[in-house]
Amino acid sequence: MDVLTREDVTALIISAKKQAGLTWEGIAETIGMSPVWTHSAAMGMNAMPADKAAALVAALGLPQEAQGLLEDSPTKVWEQTVPTDPCIYRLYEIVGVYGPTIKALIHEKFGDGIMSAIDFDMQLTRVEHPKGDRVKIEMSGKYLGYNSW
Amino acid sequence: MDVLTREDVTALIISAKKQAGLTWEGIAETIGMSPVWTHSAAMGMNAMPADKAAALVAALGLPQEAQGLLEDSPTKVWEQTVPTDPCIYRLYEIVGVYGPTIKALIHEKFGDGIMSAIDFDMQLTRVEHPKGDRVKIEMSGKYLGYNSW
Amino acid sequence: MDVLTREDVTALIISAKKQAGLTWEGIAETIGMSPVWTHSAAMGMNAMPADKAAALVAALGLPQEAQGLLEDSPTKVWEQTVPTDPCIYRLYEIVGVYGPTIKALIHEKFGDGIMSAIDFDMQLTRVEHPKGDRVKIEMSGKYLGYNSW
Amino acid sequence: MDVLTREDVTALIISAKKQAGLTWEGIAETIGMSPVWTHSAAMGMNAMPADKAAALVAALGLPQEAQGLLEDSPTKVWEQTVPTDPCIYRLYEIVGVYGPTIKALIHEKFGDGIMSAIDFDMQLTRVEHPKGDRVKIEMSGKYLGYNSW
Amino acid sequence: MDVLTREDVTALIISAKKQAGLTWEGIAETIGMSPVWTHSAAMGMNAMPADKAAALVAALGLPQEAQGLLEDSPTKVWEQTVPTDPCIYRLYEIVGVYGPTIKALIHEKFGDGIMSAIDFDMQLTRVEHPKGDRVKIEMSGKYLGYNSW
Amino acid sequence: MDVLTREDVTALIISAKKQAGLTWEGIAETIGMSPVWTHSAAMGMNAMPADKAAALVAALGLPQEAQGLLEDSPTKVWEQTVPTDPCIYRLYEIVGVYGPTIKALIHEKFGDGIMSAIDFDMQLTRVEHPKGDRVKIEMSGKYLGYNSW
Amino acid sequence: MDVLTREDVTALIISAKKQAGLTWEGIAETIGMSPVWTHSAAMGMNAMPADKAAALVAALGLPQEAQGLLEDSPTKVWEQTVPTDPCIYRLYEIVGVYGPTIKALIHEKFGDGIMSAIDFDMQLTRVEHPKGDRVKIEMSGKYLGYNSW
Amino acid sequence: MDVLTREDVTALIISAKKQAGLTWEGIAETIGMSPVWTHSAAMGMNAMPADKAAALVAALGLPQEAQGLLEDSPTKVWEQTVPTDPCIYRLYEIVGVYGPTIKALIHEKFGDGIMSAIDFDMQLTRVEHPKGDRVKIEMSGKYLGYNSW
Amino acid sequence: MDVLTREDVTALIISAKKQAGLTWEGIAETIGMSPVWTHSAAMGMNAMPADKAAALVAALGLPQEAQGLLEDSPTKVWEQTVPTDPCIYRLYEIVGVYGPTIKALIHEKFGDGIMSAIDFDMQLTRVEHPKGDRVKIEMSGKYLGYNSW
Amino acid sequence: MDVLTREDVTALIISAKKQAGLTWEGIAETIGMSPVWTHSAAMGMNAMPADKAAALVAALGLPQEAQGLLEDSPTKVWEQTVPTDPCIYRLYEIVGVYGPTIKALIHEKFGDGIMSAIDFDMQLTRVEHPKGDRVKIEMSGKYLGYNSW
Repeated sequence: MDVLTREDVTALIISAKKQAGLTWEGIAETIGMSPVWTHSAAMGMNAMPADKAAALVAALGLPQEAQGLLEDSPTKVWEQTVPTDPCIYRLYEIVGVYGPTIKALIHEKFGDGIMSAIDFDMQLTRVEHPKGDRVKIEMSGKYLGYNSW
Repeated sequence: MDVLTREDVTALIISAKKQAGLTWEGIAETIGMSPVWTHSAAMGMNAMPADKAAALVAALGLPQEAQGLLEDSPTKVWEQTVPTDPCIYRLYEIVGVYGPTIKALIHEKFGDGIMSAIDFDMQLTRVEHPKGDRVKIEMSGKYLGYNSW
Repeated sequence: MDVLTREDVTALIISAKKQAGLTWEGIAETIGMSPVWTHSAAMGMNAMPADKAAALVAALGLPQEAQGLLEDSPTKVWEQTVPTDPCIYRLYEIVGVYGPTIKALIHEKFGDGIMSAIDFDMQLTRVEHPKGDRVKIEMSGKYLGYNSW
Repeated sequence: MDVLTREDVTALIISAKKQAGLTWEGIAETIGMSPVWTHSAAMGMNAMPADKAAALVAALGLPQEAQGLLEDSPTKVWEQTVPTDPCIYRLYEIVGVYGPTIKALIHEKFGDGIMSAIDFDMQLTRVEHPKGDRVKIEMSGKYLGYNSW
Repeated sequence: MDVLTREDVTALIISAKKQAGLTWEGIAETIGMSPVWTHSAAMGMNAMPADKAAALVAALGLPQEAQGLLEDSPTKVWEQTVPTDPCIYRLYEIVGVYGPTIKALIHEKFGDGIMSAIDFDMQLTRVEHPKGDRVKIEMSGKYLGYNSW
Repeated sequence: MDVLTREDVTALIISAKKQAGLTWEGIAETIGMSPVWTHSAAMGMNAMPADKAAALVAALGLPQEAQGLLEDSPTKVWEQTVPTDPCIYRLYEIVGVYGPTIKALIHEKFGDGIMSAIDFDMQLTRVEHPKGDRVKIEMSGKYLGYNSW
Repeated sequence: MDVLTREDVTALIISAKKQAGLTWEGIAETIGMSPVWTHSAAMGMNAMPADKAAALVAALGLPQEAQGLLEDSPTKVWEQTVPTDPCIYRLYEIVGVYGPTIKALIHEKFGDGIMSAIDFDMQLTRVEHPKGDRVKIEMSGKYLGYNSW
Repeated sequence: MDVLTREDVTALIISAKKQAGLTWEGIAETIGMSPVWTHSAAMGMNAMPADKAAALVAALGLPQEAQGLLEDSPTKVWEQTVPTDPCIYRLYEIVGVYGPTIKALIHEKFGDGIMSAIDFDMQLTRVEHPKGDRVKIEMSGKYLGYNSW
Repeated sequence: MDVLTREDVTALIISAKKQAGLTWEGIAETIGMSPVWTHSAAMGMNAMPADKAAALVAALGLPQEAQGLLEDSPTKVWEQTVPTDPCIYRLYEIVGVYGPTIKALIHEKFGDGIMSAIDFDMQLTRVEHPKGDRVKIEMSGKYLGYNSW
Repeated sequence: MDVLTREDVTALIISAKKQAGLTWEGIAETIGMSPVWTHSAAMGMNAMPADKAAALVAALGLPQEAQGLLEDSPTKVWEQTVPTDPCIYRLYEIVGVYGPTIKALIHEKFGDGIMSAIDFDMQLTRVEHPKGDRVKIEMSGKYLGYNSW
């Protein structure tokens, strides 16, 4: 490995996490961030602020050059227009079924605009339930209204 | 209009809502359901239980035949593999960017499985915020673990 | 025409504009908005504030019901993933060739984020040039930085 | 590395830029060109005139064979018909929403024709704004009218 | 037919041509243009100058409103990304097989640039040949060199 | 390199051409063929007759095994359904805009049939012009009439 | 039905065939052509010579204007890139599985070239077989060798 | 080469055939099968019975492990939905143009069903013809009628 | 309704079934066939034998012409390459996940071949289960072995 | 091989199975699971419980690290939207033809909902039949009813 790449860093993180028997929740707590953001930044879907990148490098014993790569703005790419993995497909299906509803309610409650996917955060929690526990996903994004000029 | 179709019912609902100056939130309250579910059922993306269909027909003054159509199981179709409307596209983008993260955290918290998109519900609320109000979306779906046999 | 649709309004605008011998620039001036925004709102790609919708209805002699439709939040749809019209394709080509460059320079000048396409405006002007006049397009969008949480 | 390829040159430029702590703006100034063009030529989306290629090779300490490759006419390829990176997607969305408007205004101001994407230049600047700074993109392309014969 | 559309004009031209037993070559001669351009403008793939539109309306006895529609800048749309008609597919195949060759020779003879498809003309002729007559297609487009700035 | 592949031969040709400072026109003259055919055969889009393959091997000092590979019938593959390179895209656009016109004129001048892309040849020349030199492309293909049986 | 279209003719043929209890084989015999060609011309996938069109019009009692439409060169369009009908899909599968084999054997027996799909004919027959009767399809197309020039 | 793969076997066959100056017809004769089947099995599009695999291994001097791989059931994959090679595309075009005709004639001669692509065989021969030799392809597949139950 | 089409018959069946309060199971029993086959034939995805078509026409009071249409071999078309309806998508997902497994086990138990989708039948039943009732689908198709020749 | 990957494990399983002359049925019996599930888990389409992974590692003599990889939740990916292999395509075809029927019967027997593809199992058996043995596939999935809220 002549030059450390972003893909190498991802692989090193996964391997170090496995060897140390850590969880994403545990890593997130160590660097003082949420599990959702920590995982997505570790996978190269978000850039890390310098202090968080340094904390992650320290926590997992990554090579020093990894820090700079963790701070870079990644080009976000997903190969599958329609995801095949059943767990991810269900989310795509929710967008297909409920997308127009979300749009209609944003318009009703805010006006003509959107929920930002940039000024955005998300939590995932496990909710106990007598008929079977449930996955709870909470998204929050800033409302952005369309301009007229 | 010889035969009332599901598309006719959707058009009649939108027109009646406009003329009466109603909101989805108001209609939902009238029939005792949530706004997300009410809108999606009105648009033909969910089937209505008989009592809710009857309540909607009464509330909006729809023709009597509309009730049966509202109770039918719809074939859920979305034409655009990647939605072009900016408000709906942002949701698609969130699935692309955070889909693998949601999958990883479900596995960490539950095991090998998915969040159901069938035994599922969702709320959308407006959250005040000094830097600009935010859209909050809460999804809850039953965890389903993969079988081995 | 039983019910006036958004498509009817677009057709009525184009027909009224042609009969009156107006230009988009002229119509825009009449309602006190820019030509880019005026055309896109007239075509159903942007919603009009109530006063602008009223002004357009008055200026072009549209039926009164048109105003409400002009104020509705449109679902923005384009059918062609890759546009075939040569004039529009050139813009697509510019995104393909210069998209990564725009991304790199936004990151260099602002940080990890994007240019908003919602809090956004655009002008198009003709610039005289001895070797052939040039089209000048100016876009301005708010910088939105990615969240970490 | 037996033969230096265009991809190698791109990688060497990025690596040299990082090690020297340079910016695209700084590199552009050194070779006397704009940042937009400099980045796109460095990435292999534009061919460099011989003197500019020589200047870049000198400025970044690239191997001598790199100059010839920087001068070659590249085959411009982008893999994603619809770009997934949010920063680049927003530009695609602008083409979808405002493409027909740009076409209509070119026709109104010039006649039946297009804005060239070949005899073309672009600038990107940061504009301060009390509600949040803005990205400004200025494109200029020669108007080309359709022939009749 | 309340409003004459561009599609109506195309249909009227085809029908008038058939009834009068005309050829595209004959029509082109009558209006003083080439057959290629005349057919493409009649089909709505090119806009006509006012005098040519008037000449066509006169020659084929079209309704007076047709002239304005023939002068409009058309939005050029083709539905099939890969054409299925064998006669048109062969042209697509030629682009696939010889496209890179045409690019290489343009670069060799002119420099880094393209052949314009806007400042462009084409002729089609029948060439007698002892082993079977041949179709000859001649295209001519202005060379446009890439800018650097 | 254990076994010389067709891709290796292409790379060797390009490299030898560069080192010797040759042009496609020059190479074509040396082997007594046209530049269009010579380039396309060198790139693996046409098979070479034995004497021409031998001449090319001699002219560029290629390894002896290259001759057999140059004589093989290649499987013609292009990856991009719609080419992104601007120079090649313009040709695709010409097929989209003028394809139906070429079809109509072939039918008018010959009958129900096509222009062959197999019994086919092409020339590309530079034509001087006071307003900017032009690219001239001449295609000639045998007319093939549909059978009835 | 103001103007008889090609689609109308197809529908009239199918309806007349049904009412008269005819078969494609019978119709083909009446007009003195093969069943394959007769069906494809009746469906608008081949143009008919004048005498055959006249014979078909007479045989089925079609309106007189149908003859001209049957003689027109059709634009051959199939909507499904991959056909879904099982009977037609099997043919597509055969091309996928055996296409490279057919290519290799044409090259071995003829040289570098193709089997024409224009100077082409086909027969379909039923062959009795003790383990179940078989469909026999015989295709014959002129070999066309690639040009070099 | 640690483990011999199916792709290795294909490459070894092609190389051995070239070195020995054999033809597919010759190899087919040696192993007592048809050229179409022999080529397709050699390319990994059909599995070989043990004795035929052994005969091929012996005839071409392949390594012993090749036999087992030649007997494996291959997963049949073709990458291009629409084949670009002109020789293979013509077959695809024939399916597009004549597919509905083949379906109609199978129904007329057999009933509601298909021609099997599994219980299937094919021959390719060269037929002399004064106007140019012709490629003859004969396919034979068992008729399978749809079940009702 | 001048001419009764296959689509009309489908609509009449659905409407008659609704008015009479019938189930598919009930209709199937009346005509002496299985519910799966009866529904698919009623929807135009299978042709009906004459006696079954007559029985269906009688049972539902369809117009007499419907019988002939029910007997026709339908062209089986599905518009969505990947079905969006959640109930149908789950079946597509099962093919994606378990397709290679089904192939491997068919090969292990039968040899190199496939399960026919033509000589095929299917049952769907409800199976009671303490943790929630289950859908049971049983498919049975004739094994077809690949030919060698 | 520095790090054992999931792909390595799949390859090792296939190789060990071949060398030991085992069948999927045999392996499944050894680890006490069904052949369908065993094959799909071995191919990386299902995660293995720890004891089953240990049993497989022991049975096939896999390296110890393989166990952890067999227990990981795989990301399920299939590359081909429409599978080309004839054996797998037939399953896709069954979904296209009978998907709407399965949906209709689920609704009739259960209500508005789906058959789960997660809480799911499948068997494949060989059924003897005088006209040719048949493949029997039995699927069983939990019925999941849509929520209303």
